[in-house]
Amino acid sequence: MSRLVVTYRVRAPSRDAADIAETLALEQSVEVATSVVRDEFVRDEVMGRVVGIARVDEGLHDVRIALASITTGDEVAQTLNMLFGNSSLHEHVELVDVELPAEFAARFPGPRFGIDGIRELAGARGRPLTCAALKPQGLPVERLAALCRDLVRGGVDVVKDDHGLADQGYSPFAARVAACQRALAQASSETGRRALYAPSLVGPPAKLAEYARVARDEGAAMLLVAPALVGYAAFHELVRSACVPVIAHPALAGATRIAPPLLLGKLFRWLGADAVIYPNYGGRFAYTRETCEAIALEARRTDCAWKPMLPVPAGGLAVERVAELRSVYGDDIMLLIGGSLLMAGDDLVARTRAFTHAAHSAPAAR
Amino acid sequence: MSRLVVTYRVRAPSRDAADIAETLALEQSVEVATSVVRDEFVRDEVMGRVVGIARVDEGLHDVRIALASITTGDEVAQTLNMLFGNSSLHEHVELVDVELPAEFAARFPGPRFGIDGIRELAGARGRPLTCAALKPQGLPVERLAALCRDLVRGGVDVVKDDHGLADQGYSPFAARVAACQRALAQASSETGRRALYAPSLVGPPAKLAEYARVARDEGAAMLLVAPALVGYAAFHELVRSACVPVIAHPALAGATRIAPPLLLGKLFRWLGADAVIYPNYGGRFAYTRETCEAIALEARRTDCAWKPMLPVPAGGLAVERVAELRSVYGDDIMLLIGGSLLMAGDDLVARTRAFTHAAHSAPAAR
Repeated sequence: MSRLVVTYRVRAPSRDAADIAETLALEQSVEVATSVVRDEFVRDEVMGRVVGIARVDEGLHDVRIALASITTGDEVAQTLNMLFGNSSLHEHVELVDVELPAEFAARFPGPRFGIDGIRELAGARGRPLTCAALKPQGLPVERLAALCRDLVRGGVDVVKDDHGLADQGYSPFAARVAACQRALAQASSETGRRALYAPSLVGPPAKLAEYARVARDEGAAMLLVAPALVGYAAFHELVRSACVPVIAHPALAGATRIAPPLLLGKLFRWLGADAVIYPNYGGRFAYTRETCEAIALEARRTDCAWKPMLPVPAGGLAVERVAELRSVYGDDIMLLIGGSLLMAGDDLVARTRAFTHAAHSAPAAR
Repeated sequence: MSRLVVTYRVRAPSRDAADIAETLALEQSVEVATSVVRDEFVRDEVMGRVVGIARVDEGLHDVRIALASITTGDEVAQTLNMLFGNSSLHEHVELVDVELPAEFAARFPGPRFGIDGIRELAGARGRPLTCAALKPQGLPVERLAALCRDLVRGGVDVVKDDHGLADQGYSPFAARVAACQRALAQASSETGRRALYAPSLVGPPAKLAEYARVARDEGAAMLLVAPALVGYAAFHELVRSACVPVIAHPALAGATRIAPPLLLGKLFRWLGADAVIYPNYGGRFAYTRETCEAIALEARRTDCAWKPMLPVPAGGLAVERVAELRSVYGDDIMLLIGGSLLMAGDDLVARTRAFTHAAHSAPAAR
């Protein structure tokens, strides 16, 4: 029967690596000593197996464990349980990769829109998409709607809520979505260019479904949701019932001891995210360029059953970096500039135009 | 207006600590530079404020930030967003404590049963409660039920599913709960002692509610759920609608860069867990005795509005350590012994009796 091959990066001297690998194989499957496993089916078809140990560096080893697909029950939360439930409690263990067997992957639909779907909705081909954010939180609904209008006048494809916008008293979800979507539609009809609004959904599962209904009724063309915040399984449940593309936000997903290319790239795509925001190198977060390129690679790789997910580098970007990012990532990305545009104050529309102009111009040579 | 005072432990030289503190205060509130915050309400009532910086060690500082309660919308996922959404993406930042203002805490009911409620259900006073686990996963329902019967014959108060038991084909949830609850009731009527069964619920939000209904209909007296696996907000939603005590499991909660006493002790209690399983020191996990005692302290502290949560040290315990753990924690705990009992094989009932006898005997002097 099929198995997920999981790679754990383990901090341990070479002499301990084999023992640790065996322990992990048990911990992440039967959770008892082998002597307790007396049932043949459990031993042969359920118990984890060490399939490789490779030295990465002094005191650092990649341990590969094959976990039976049947233990996942083909469900998100239980799959994460098998991958990193108890072993997350071991500080010396990092989850760095998972090879999903085709037959397992096929039970999850992946992104429903993906890059092509989002491009079609936005009417944007052959260039990076552009995105800007409504913030700071605390502003009343009308002020957020006015920002939304100006950003659309500046020509961005997508206006997203800041992920800190939830359902607070100062800008309740329903009122905010109605006002921002109206402002967006109006500005869009002025410019004659399409624009998409992605409200931020944060809350318990029952509320998420309600927010998604409100967003749909108001005509919002995308949604923004942080899987680690709302729960990975709740995110997956929401995506499967939503009728618009969903942008995944990395909030709370940074402190997981799961390698970012795996979590934000491969696993968020598995959950069905159509686009993924991640902290770009050289901004206000510390991800390296190598990590960011690996996230984009996982998001867009074509050797799997799922539609490509749109990489959205963000986190302290400025207009001046657009050409550089296009040369690094190519044009199948969405560039998200937040605070740096807002610093333009009364020149917001002009600054946004500079941004979208840079993204629409002929690409730099790669 | 009230504020949550959040302590972040930051790896940085002293000369950078003040800047990092200011950056965190912005990142975890308005997420823009101060120059962008031109609205008076946002500046005074929404923007985070640095309220303290203390050197902990060379290159290590505790930074205290006051975050406005109104930004949380009084909701679990959004509260976590405010506490550690984007700052989780900074590897040099650990979330170590949160002081919740009384007025904020009062909006969350906390444990509904707590230690006293569980004791009453189990008919167990003046001694530690005892708990054992059904595993390994992969066994058919009848075999798990037989284990359940033997553990109850051995006198344990609580039999819990292994947290790896979800809704897999080899022991589907509904069939398992029915069989185990029946075995437990029968064995309990033989011994004349009460016993409680806690099935493991893992899955997407819609399924969790369904599992909880099945468990209730079968008469299961407790539930076992891992908040980090199913999602913190989904856990909270489940707890509020469940009619029995809920044991929180730490699966996937180990790799959060949130101090274990805060996450497993304070925040799981905030979510409403009635009991919390954590990896005890000296077992197969690496938590220190200091960390474990701090978890138990948070779980049981009486200077807050919520009922005390039952600490459940676990993870590689053996009967021989019962006296030691009672002397360390006192008797307001539940001792969980899993694999070590099962290693007894055909002597499972006798070995379980030795465990419960040790827990029922006069306590060691503290």
